[in-house]
Amino acid sequence: MLREENELLTHVGPGTPLGELYRRFWVPALLAEELPERDGPPVRTRILGEDLVGFRDTGGQVGFVARNCPHRGASLFFGRNEEDGLRCVYHGWKFDVTGQCVDMPNEPAESNFKTKIRATSYPARERGGVIWIYMGPQERIPELPELEWARVPADQRDVWRVTNEANWLQMIEGDLDTCHSMFLHSAVDPSALLLTSRRFEQTSDRAPRISLKQTDWGFAYAGRYAALGGRHNWRVTQWLMPCYTLIANRAWPVVGRAVVPADDEHCHFFTIRYSGEGPLDRDRLPNRGAERTVYTMPDGSLIDTYRPLANRSNDYLLDRERQRIKNYTGMFRIFDEDRAMTESMGPIVDRTQEHLGTSDLAVIGLRRRLLSMMKELQQGVEPAAPHDGSVYHVRSYDTVSDEGDFERFLEEHRSGMLAVV
Amino acid sequence: MLREENELLTHVGPGTPLGELYRRFWVPALLAEELPERDGPPVRTRILGEDLVGFRDTGGQVGFVARNCPHRGASLFFGRNEEDGLRCVYHGWKFDVTGQCVDMPNEPAESNFKTKIRATSYPARERGGVIWIYMGPQERIPELPELEWARVPADQRDVWRVTNEANWLQMIEGDLDTCHSMFLHSAVDPSALLLTSRRFEQTSDRAPRISLKQTDWGFAYAGRYAALGGRHNWRVTQWLMPCYTLIANRAWPVVGRAVVPADDEHCHFFTIRYSGEGPLDRDRLPNRGAERTVYTMPDGSLIDTYRPLANRSNDYLLDRERQRIKNYTGMFRIFDEDRAMTESMGPIVDRTQEHLGTSDLAVIGLRRRLLSMMKELQQGVEPAAPHDGSVYHVRSYDTVSDEGDFERFLEEHRSGMLAVV
Amino acid sequence: MLREENELLTHVGPGTPLGELYRRFWVPALLAEELPERDGPPVRTRILGEDLVGFRDTGGQVGFVARNCPHRGASLFFGRNEEDGLRCVYHGWKFDVTGQCVDMPNEPAESNFKTKIRATSYPARERGGVIWIYMGPQERIPELPELEWARVPADQRDVWRVTNEANWLQMIEGDLDTCHSMFLHSAVDPSALLLTSRRFEQTSDRAPRISLKQTDWGFAYAGRYAALGGRHNWRVTQWLMPCYTLIANRAWPVVGRAVVPADDEHCHFFTIRYSGEGPLDRDRLPNRGAERTVYTMPDGSLIDTYRPLANRSNDYLLDRERQRIKNYTGMFRIFDEDRAMTESMGPIVDRTQEHLGTSDLAVIGLRRRLLSMMKELQQGVEPAAPHDGSVYHVRSYDTVSDEGDFERFLEEHRSGMLAVV
Repeated sequence: MLREENELLTHVGPGTPLGELYRRFWVPALLAEELPERDGPPVRTRILGEDLVGFRDTGGQVGFVARNCPHRGASLFFGRNEEDGLRCVYHGWKFDVTGQCVDMPNEPAESNFKTKIRATSYPARERGGVIWIYMGPQERIPELPELEWARVPADQRDVWRVTNEANWLQMIEGDLDTCHSMFLHSAVDPSALLLTSRRFEQTSDRAPRISLKQTDWGFAYAGRYAALGGRHNWRVTQWLMPCYTLIANRAWPVVGRAVVPADDEHCHFFTIRYSGEGPLDRDRLPNRGAERTVYTMPDGSLIDTYRPLANRSNDYLLDRERQRIKNYTGMFRIFDEDRAMTESMGPIVDRTQEHLGTSDLAVIGLRRRLLSMMKELQQGVEPAAPHDGSVYHVRSYDTVSDEGDFERFLEEHRSGMLAVV
Repeated sequence: MLREENELLTHVGPGTPLGELYRRFWVPALLAEELPERDGPPVRTRILGEDLVGFRDTGGQVGFVARNCPHRGASLFFGRNEEDGLRCVYHGWKFDVTGQCVDMPNEPAESNFKTKIRATSYPARERGGVIWIYMGPQERIPELPELEWARVPADQRDVWRVTNEANWLQMIEGDLDTCHSMFLHSAVDPSALLLTSRRFEQTSDRAPRISLKQTDWGFAYAGRYAALGGRHNWRVTQWLMPCYTLIANRAWPVVGRAVVPADDEHCHFFTIRYSGEGPLDRDRLPNRGAERTVYTMPDGSLIDTYRPLANRSNDYLLDRERQRIKNYTGMFRIFDEDRAMTESMGPIVDRTQEHLGTSDLAVIGLRRRLLSMMKELQQGVEPAAPHDGSVYHVRSYDTVSDEGDFERFLEEHRSGMLAVV
Repeated sequence: MLREENELLTHVGPGTPLGELYRRFWVPALLAEELPERDGPPVRTRILGEDLVGFRDTGGQVGFVARNCPHRGASLFFGRNEEDGLRCVYHGWKFDVTGQCVDMPNEPAESNFKTKIRATSYPARERGGVIWIYMGPQERIPELPELEWARVPADQRDVWRVTNEANWLQMIEGDLDTCHSMFLHSAVDPSALLLTSRRFEQTSDRAPRISLKQTDWGFAYAGRYAALGGRHNWRVTQWLMPCYTLIANRAWPVVGRAVVPADDEHCHFFTIRYSGEGPLDRDRLPNRGAERTVYTMPDGSLIDTYRPLANRSNDYLLDRERQRIKNYTGMFRIFDEDRAMTESMGPIVDRTQEHLGTSDLAVIGLRRRLLSMMKELQQGVEPAAPHDGSVYHVRSYDTVSDEGDFERFLEEHRSGMLAVV
């Protein structure tokens, strides 16, 4: 890969090609539970390189404003959230969820200065336990993506997030890589599986044949693993523009993901576990292993987020003895194993040094599609998916079949890959 | 404001226009209590972007030398302070308070090399509980500013300092902004005032009319607040070149400030509380809430300073419940509230994004005056104030008057604004 | 010194002139005890600006590979060290100590892709308690230097290392500077010496005459101190290319050093104490005062190393009262005193600001020799020393003599300066 392509795919600030493409979509920003009450404490975050403060107003509406007050730049995080607006405590300027200045008590009563002042703001919506943000042009405001996990009843869904210390792309590429499961997440001693959530593989095939089909929502790709009797175990994972994955799994709950760039070197990593059928048995879900925290970004900015207990600074609780006798990595949770790999590449991995094999087809497909969409957008061709939430009505899939051809397999199982809700 | 102007006003290193202007004045460097004894431990600091070591010699004289020994660069902070000089422990080179090398025991006795070696050094003076430094040309050495607080007896003054994590300008602009007090430092529940040091405002006017008059020492500016019976409450704050403020207060003690750039992203913030009449009742002064510490600058350099207990890393001990029912910010001390605002703007706030109102007149006046003085100095016009300490004989002021015009008010109360000492 | 020369002497990454010169020599990388067992945990480090993972394979052979897996860049530190290779846990690619990919289980069995994949790797050798690395061209692989300390029996040697927070050059210059001992490491109260390891100086001469002779291995240089009866105490220290010193000492154990650049702002500092005669009495050696740790480099990379208990962040446990009455620095160990000086210069000291005296002859000699070797190498002239280990058969020396001329003194004591082993 060319250095220029790696930069295009990893830089997300305002004005960058990828940043502009991302600014055509609603993306997950916070958990709904982070802003539980009306007029409650605001939350600070960073998304696509912009420092933001989110708050829920008296009417229950959520909004995001730029962290720095448009007056003299004090942080609105310290603001008072009161009577339909967030009020800067420095001079009392108050902004509603649209960013409009609605009160300016330090200027003469006759002044109309406040009508001219708007904080940079971005609209928010709530669905599926998530607060979504749209940071693009007002005149192109899109639809929310109709992801199945966002539309099932709340008791059929578990959603949480952490902030990861590496660029978004290497994080999402970790999900679009079916074959790493046979290594990274595997057991050394199968009896160890009894104690963990580790998937028991029905196949011993560790070199699946990968296929990929570009679609309206992104792409479907599959690993075809050898199964008993010459049959094929197809594991179909979905990539949905720009930042979602649905991981192949044979039974509920299915894992979905949203990987939202915080800045070029950090991303917010949402993990969704959901059932399309009925309530989740929460007691059987692996716990989150993360805690609410204030995180200091390398430039000194603070954000409110969740931090995994096993993380970069403690080598993900790596235990070499465990690695020798129990499971492949010596770590305790699949979730930690994935981050160990993608964060250990460095903040932005140098993709000019890679050596990709046939197993990396989906990673290659993702990059090509993104580069092509960026190029189109620069030429004025807007992406279609943001404006039709129903293209997101898809599921991941995992089944055994006699069919060996991916296109025909997709055709045959089309209805099984449609979200029901 | 133009980006170039913001850079001019915030960059203080050697050779920068503002750095050169600052180098025409004595400025506060340390508290006298930081160098309490002759031949005692030296103190390291950073001022105007230069790393320095201050020490008090056998005769009681204080001097500052550049941190790195002129021989091979070891830090003189580790030096031995002995017999009228600071001796580098690496090879025994010894420097007096003027920076002259006075002993070089590792060179042959017949060598006169030591007479040719001078450490970069800056003169120091003591007055008013403060050690002052002058970092400009030797041939232009100015007078100490005759600030009232620096000349009253020691029992009429309390002075302390902390190092703040933002550029000096946003810190001093916080002082030249009378109207923020009505918001940032106000109570939600007036009864809460009984428990705090918060000023009880005689006025409910939160949109004062601001006036400003440029003077020899800097400027006087006032907020005119509506008072009972159609009268005017004039609150007059002084800015004294280059880094001092005297805050309007109706009674002693009055608060003064000196904001001295450490580097572009940090400043030393001296707070003075003093009475022009008699001894302070120290038991009634709010405590300092700061402790002596070694602070690691972002480039890894260490300085000796004081650190507030409520600071950036703990959100200034913000308590959202307190904010809801007690006082505007949910913080505990005025001093913390001010830093929360100015530090939260970021290390150097982007002034191209500001929206200034009529209440920001003094902030605008400060910037214009500084830009004009920098330009003059570049054209060879030296500032006059450094060479006449008596221009600093002024006081802040706070009174109610029938007079509505600032010029006439100043004329009428001229004697009340003169320092007596 | 010119700024350009300082950069030439301090920058060590791939492609820099000094980096290329260093890449002609074997240099110490780890202690042998850091990789104690076959198939044991790998160790991560940084050498000459490159992030590396060292491991010992099933056959006992040690190798170094670049930290980032050539596939997609995950860290091989998390790898499984098993059956003659280090296996990346992400997709199971396995590399032997030469960097050759020997297994690629996620690709189809018929694929020969693995034969085309090599991790960047560097050969390692073990001698003298140290694991050495060679990072230069394969076709020029040199001999190990036959340093006496590396060839004596293990019970005659103690070797350990720490990572220092400054450029390698200022660290090694600290060793090539005989006269600092009379200051930095001296006692104020001679009785304090009873409690320390401090050398009792037979001379009160603190301004030695320095002489230097360039040699095949680097140079020998001496301080000639006045001794009783008009005689001369010659203390001869050796510099051996590119990073070794042997410190003058009158009795065993002698101290040797290897200062290996980690990157431009850190170095690995190996200290060797050895006897050329018989087993060391370990109970009488000052303890190391350092502990195994994971160190976070400023760019966020983690390395495995040892950290001194007295270090930059605690001012090397400086005790000002001790400094006043006990020893020159108020620190507790010679080892800490040296680092206090060299680290306090800053990550890369600005040598354009130095003022060198006659005592700095060896420092000057080192720089000139290195600059000249770099220039030669750029012109295609390879250094000879790496290819003849026997040129390292030298000792430091410390004796009293009637002879006052360095050349004649060297001639007279030639055999005493030859390593015996």
